[in-house]
Amino acid sequence: MPGLRPNIVSMAGYVPGEQPRDGEYVKLNTNENPYPPSPRVVEAIREALTGDRLRKYPEPLGDTFRNAAAKVLGISPDQILIGNGSDDILTILTRAFVPEGGLVVSPAPSYLLYKTLAEIQGARFQTVPYTADWNLPDPWPVEHADLTFIANPNSPSGTMVDPAVIARLSKRTKGPIVLDEAYADFADDNGLRFAGELNLIITRTLSKSYSLAGIRFGFAIGHASVIRELVKVKDSYNCDVLSLTAATAAIQDQEHLAEMRRQIIATREWMTTELQNEWFRGRGIEILPSQANFVWLRRPERTLRPVYAELRRREILVRHMHYPGFGEGLRVTVGTDEEAKWFVDHFRDALFLEEFPLLNPGP
Amino acid sequence: MPGLRPNIVSMAGYVPGEQPRDGEYVKLNTNENPYPPSPRVVEAIREALTGDRLRKYPEPLGDTFRNAAAKVLGISPDQILIGNGSDDILTILTRAFVPEGGLVVSPAPSYLLYKTLAEIQGARFQTVPYTADWNLPDPWPVEHADLTFIANPNSPSGTMVDPAVIARLSKRTKGPIVLDEAYADFADDNGLRFAGELNLIITRTLSKSYSLAGIRFGFAIGHASVIRELVKVKDSYNCDVLSLTAATAAIQDQEHLAEMRRQIIATREWMTTELQNEWFRGRGIEILPSQANFVWLRRPERTLRPVYAELRRREILVRHMHYPGFGEGLRVTVGTDEEAKWFVDHFRDALFLEEFPLLNPGP
Repeated sequence: MPGLRPNIVSMAGYVPGEQPRDGEYVKLNTNENPYPPSPRVVEAIREALTGDRLRKYPEPLGDTFRNAAAKVLGISPDQILIGNGSDDILTILTRAFVPEGGLVVSPAPSYLLYKTLAEIQGARFQTVPYTADWNLPDPWPVEHADLTFIANPNSPSGTMVDPAVIARLSKRTKGPIVLDEAYADFADDNGLRFAGELNLIITRTLSKSYSLAGIRFGFAIGHASVIRELVKVKDSYNCDVLSLTAATAAIQDQEHLAEMRRQIIATREWMTTELQNEWFRGRGIEILPSQANFVWLRRPERTLRPVYAELRRREILVRHMHYPGFGEGLRVTVGTDEEAKWFVDHFRDALFLEEFPLLNPGP
Repeated sequence: MPGLRPNIVSMAGYVPGEQPRDGEYVKLNTNENPYPPSPRVVEAIREALTGDRLRKYPEPLGDTFRNAAAKVLGISPDQILIGNGSDDILTILTRAFVPEGGLVVSPAPSYLLYKTLAEIQGARFQTVPYTADWNLPDPWPVEHADLTFIANPNSPSGTMVDPAVIARLSKRTKGPIVLDEAYADFADDNGLRFAGELNLIITRTLSKSYSLAGIRFGFAIGHASVIRELVKVKDSYNCDVLSLTAATAAIQDQEHLAEMRRQIIATREWMTTELQNEWFRGRGIEILPSQANFVWLRRPERTLRPVYAELRRREILVRHMHYPGFGEGLRVTVGTDEEAKWFVDHFRDALFLEEFPLLNPGP
């Protein structure tokens, strides 16, 4: 291609989880929330459709959202940067901190987008393996990175590192640590109490816990002096008026959030108990206790790819992920109780049919 | 700031036009459309609020929009890249084509964001002055640019270069020419017939002609092989479900577009005739015939800043713009007939009071 940067041409590009438009899939592949968003969200959007909000530019910095979120989170509005999904925030951070040829680091296995962001920027990407118990190695080997992404809770493992450990580490790294808390609302702890640290930036999204993947809204929390610089890098109007309206209404309904959280955690614990039982263990299935809205299933001695395919044939969509050097597994979103039960039953069937293939009735 | 790239720290950042939330301003400063969007847009958004569209991720490539737009524009869907406003598209193009230390070029005076995009990327930015009659100099002096932005119609001048000239030039430049057609729907011509050129990328927005500045939607049109590469650079879900829904409904209502276009052009011609009359000419006011939804007013021998301030005091908001090396002026959006008349009257008053300051009743 004429003129394209070589790093763009050579990269593969991030492949998001499938969004099938047809079929009746039980969709457990992209960690969407199975419950509807707060009714206040829909109401607020409906209201924004009257008047002249659609034809006018939105608030560039999203001050209405910033004020509402600051109040809920107990921080100052100028510590918040709005984003068109937290992917937009991660992009802004990469552009602000990482020069061409710079270094981006992340523990592994983790969110694959971090590597893609480094590639787009023309930077190097280096991973640091999690320890066997899913903690960060101590000492941390790459303090000179321009940017370090740590998803906490982590995907695909669902595990969590003590945020205090990460905050301490941020005092030693050259570039900031991005504490990607996309799943923090499902966890026992989070890093919010470290939001004043100069070299730590927390990112949040409304896609998962607030059930708003469709509206694309995320935000960063950091030191006000850093947020001010990041504003220069974002597009002037990176969030549209309906997303801002939806996000503001959503974050103001903490009761709804608490109820969804309670329900999803209950279902997650049920799934985990079921999948830890003797039958699954006897078939080599390993499941980690999760702090997120998904569970991560592995079978170290044998690939789960055929099981994934069999589930897909049964219109149950989960995410099969393979991490070179770290093996593979199935990441399964925690859906409703019914979906979770459906998954466990069909997962059992799929494993059973794998043992006794002659019983498989075929497609 | 620890870790920030020096190009980010040293840059000023793009300052978008004011979006006042208070007061009863006649808002003619950011080229919003004074008429509401197609009623089909609101209807489509309302419909998207039912079901589970908010909680699920949107279509990554926006295929529903791409199919609809391709049909309207007479091109292939795979020639279209969706963007979160055309600013998102301009950002994607910069990241795809311009390495750190690379060269971004634009005629001048033009859209100030082009410089900001180069600065964020850590690239050099060079301008090429328009000729006295607002054409491109021939020969074009900077064919080796990694990316060349040409706004056509241009802002702030409202003038237009023959798209055939730009298409021909794109055969000689190293990196592609971005033909920024944000205002093309108000012009007599556009570059769509050159959409198949390998080194030319056309950008469009729904903010102006479709009256949807609030929803942030733009798109690029280019060779399918180029669009495919650009997909790697955009965020996976850069457009949300409501924007995609709105954009699809809007582009399918070409009748509504035609009617808004007709009305705005009629008002623009009325404004231009008024402001070209002897009284304004006698006071040194110069106005160019515009192909956009704004007019550009200059007074070469004396700054218009006090006139801008007086208009602002009267709650009429226009854009005062100063281009080092090219002078300054007022860019005035074409509003409704009533707003246009209001502007012309108060502009006359403001100039009059400037001549006879003792008549000014003060604030």
